[in-house]
Amino acid sequence: MEKKTKRSKRWVKPIEKPKKYAGVLLAADFWFGRVIENPKEIKKILIKAAKEAKNISLEITIHKFQPQGITGVVLLAESHIFISTWPEINYVAIDIFSCGEKAMPEKALQYLKKEFKPKKVVIRKIKRGVLK
Amino acid sequence: MEKKTKRSKRWVKPIEKPKKYAGVLLAADFWFGRVIENPKEIKKILIKAAKEAKNISLEITIHKFQPQGITGVVLLAESHIFISTWPEINYVAIDIFSCGEKAMPEKALQYLKKEFKPKKVVIRKIKRGVLK
Repeated sequence: MEKKTKRSKRWVKPIEKPKKYAGVLLAADFWFGRVIENPKEIKKILIKAAKEAKNISLEITIHKFQPQGITGVVLLAESHIFISTWPEINYVAIDIFSCGEKAMPEKALQYLKKEFKPKKVVIRKIKRGVLK
Repeated sequence: MEKKTKRSKRWVKPIEKPKKYAGVLLAADFWFGRVIENPKEIKKILIKAAKEAKNISLEITIHKFQPQGITGVVLLAESHIFISTWPEINYVAIDIFSCGEKAMPEKALQYLKKEFKPKKVVIRKIKRGVLK
């Protein structure tokens, strides 16, 4: 909790210029794909997703529900990636919040698509901390 | 990680009916409010926010950056609440993802406004897992 991790420069750079934004949130709904319920696999996937987006993983938390469903989040030096699987309706919710204009949340998303193989995907891209 | 927590019924109920959605994501930008940088205080705030929304807290992860900034997430039986403070621009990003139509993310938001006292708030409400 008190590790001396510097926040990524991505947090700060874009806001030095006017009319910029602090980060991007990709809110993705994956439907009818692979059902992944193994905590170790979800952990591996979160770390890989962070890496693909050139983010630095800080802390990972996973929680397995009974009888089914798993939810996990990796905190990043550039924000976070959240996953929650919902096998009962074959649905996976994914949030990728990345900071700065150079963030590559799409890369993480691309990788997650490969892992979960959804037949249908709904994505919303939301700019966060828009400076006017 | 292997606690026998049942996922909240909120995850399942609304999807039994057609044309419903699985959850709601409130993406909030708080500007020019209180700067809270104490991990213990952030932890307390996350727990209280979850409680206000009648959610059950499962796991909390907080990460303090050097020299400033703090990011934290509480996983819920009904999804998650994420906070990231950004003192350098007096900005706080908050995501409240709650499941089911009976979820009360607004209550959590109301409480968080009281704590952070932002002078300007930008909120986006996004329905997640919309069943057509």
